Amino acid sequence: MKTGLLYGSVQEDLRLVEQIFESLKDADYGPLGEMLGMVLGGGGKLMRPALALLAGRFGDYDLARLVPLAASVELLHTATLVHDDVIDNASTRRGRRTVNSAFQNSTTVMLGDFLFAHAADQVVRTDSLRVVRLFSNTLMIMAKGEIRQDLAAYDSRQTIRDYLHRIGGKTASLFATACEGGAVVSQAPEPWVDALREYGHSLGMAFQIVDDILDFTGDEVQMGKPVGSDLMQGTLTLPSFLLMERQPQSNPVQKYFSRPTKDRLAQAVDMVRASGILEESYGMAREFCRRAREAISVLPDNADRQTLADLTDYILERRS
Amino acid sequence: MKTGLLYGSVQEDLRLVEQIFESLKDADYGPLGEMLGMVLGGGGKLMRPALALLAGRFGDYDLARLVPLAASVELLHTATLVHDDVIDNASTRRGRRTVNSAFQNSTTVMLGDFLFAHAADQVVRTDSLRVVRLFSNTLMIMAKGEIRQDLAAYDSRQTIRDYLHRIGGKTASLFATACEGGAVVSQAPEPWVDALREYGHSLGMAFQIVDDILDFTGDEVQMGKPVGSDLMQGTLTLPSFLLMERQPQSNPVQKYFSRPTKDRLAQAVDMVRASGILEESYGMAREFCRRAREAISVLPDNADRQTLADLTDYILERRS
Repeated sequence: MKTGLLYGSVQEDLRLVEQIFESLKDADYGPLGEMLGMVLGGGGKLMRPALALLAGRFGDYDLARLVPLAASVELLHTATLVHDDVIDNASTRRGRRTVNSAFQNSTTVMLGDFLFAHAADQVVRTDSLRVVRLFSNTLMIMAKGEIRQDLAAYDSRQTIRDYLHRIGGKTASLFATACEGGAVVSQAPEPWVDALREYGHSLGMAFQIVDDILDFTGDEVQMGKPVGSDLMQGTLTLPSFLLMERQPQSNPVQKYFSRPTKDRLAQAVDMVRASGILEESYGMAREFCRRAREAISVLPDNADRQTLADLTDYILERRS
Repeated sequence: MKTGLLYGSVQEDLRLVEQIFESLKDADYGPLGEMLGMVLGGGGKLMRPALALLAGRFGDYDLARLVPLAASVELLHTATLVHDDVIDNASTRRGRRTVNSAFQNSTTVMLGDFLFAHAADQVVRTDSLRVVRLFSNTLMIMAKGEIRQDLAAYDSRQTIRDYLHRIGGKTASLFATACEGGAVVSQAPEPWVDALREYGHSLGMAFQIVDDILDFTGDEVQMGKPVGSDLMQGTLTLPSFLLMERQPQSNPVQKYFSRPTKDRLAQAVDMVRASGILEESYGMAREFCRRAREAISVLPDNADRQTLADLTDYILERRS
């Protein structure tokens, strides 16, 4: 897999999306421009914007409308990350300092709101009320997913079903919207719009499951956060659920939640790693990737469809 | 002034706006519905939605589009209040418990985002991209105003000009948008759209100046926050600026900022109250009210214009 060509025919056009971010940073007065630089500073994979552009390849590929859409998706994603950082008091994300560690909480909340405003400003440039509606629905689903996650923290009575529902809202919904939005803006035929939405949803599910696996296996430096950070924040993810299923009697997760110590965390993490749980989790991610590829089987068999299919492999292989 | 008829011909239609809020609360699962109840629980003056409806009276008064617009304005306002509460760690607002005192910060941030999403969802129902664009610009200006306020906290080098700019973004922009949005949705003639926007802006400036005066004079129980709470948060408002102008040598505000004690706060508050500063501040609010009335002089001389004019008096007379 050649990473440079990860996004195939739209790879180059992503620069236009980055140019929008640059212009936002330049346009604003000192401190705000600096903050925008920290969160839109580059280094991200731009997967969501790439999906929006790739979906646009299956209709009238009009960059004047697709680039604002792609920018909007990433701005919405970044806004929720910024708000997440406030929440978790995380001091680093992806190895970089978060805005929240440099500025006070209040300013960070408003920076997130400012990014929402820019996301809205960009999405309006698609000139499509349908796409604007798609965005407001997505934000609603995402916020609800995060609220569910917060309210369910340290609650070990949840089920895998709850987990899937939660990551569907938190992550997959925006992947689905990126794809659906790109297809709608490009006036792709409705069955293709549906197929791309379904692809995006399944890809997003797999993406989040792998993210949650990497929280147990990843390299602390590469991931930019400590191993087991989800459990540390009381968040149950797929590997934890599988562990609880296998050890219903001496439940190491419940044990950790009842009195969170470093040793108990390490014990739970080690048990997940020593078991076949991570392989089972990957199996579930693979199943979502299979569904993603199946969804796009109705699309014309071209290089762009191949790029979308290749992305499902990339997602499974990524290490950070 | 008969408060019951404060909003004249649109008073009754505000119930339709409240019905939207009720339906949002009912629609959501337990804990989220409960949170929505706390922030949309009624008791608010609904001034912004009333302005949207009143502006709509100067064109085609179509409730199917105006009610969602009015709801959207209030939802946007409420979202920023919720995010403000996170920021200030305020435990009460208007005498009621804030969401933030009942839930953790993270959940409150997401509740604000959820309200943004509902605001976006409602504004899309106006079927007007122009109004959606108006909203995204307003959110951008509001967020920027709040960021400026945060970054300028405890900085006594600011000027009255900075203050006016800041409250223009923080408060007047949404008043202006409520009026402009109502006029646009109703397809009022463009000169009337401009007039209503200008009216809303000036009314909003006066509203915020009076708010800032009440922070020095208001009754703690009625206001639901302690006297001098702005200074306590490092926020300079018009009375503080005027005090600094009058006492450039022994500046009591700078003195308080350099070492914030209860005594020094009380001293600054007392000096503001004992001087003619509050009267001078009211003078500025009155000037904005005059401009507001002047702006609508181009509108037809009818009962709705009179309601708008009467609101400028109400704003100056309110005590909480």
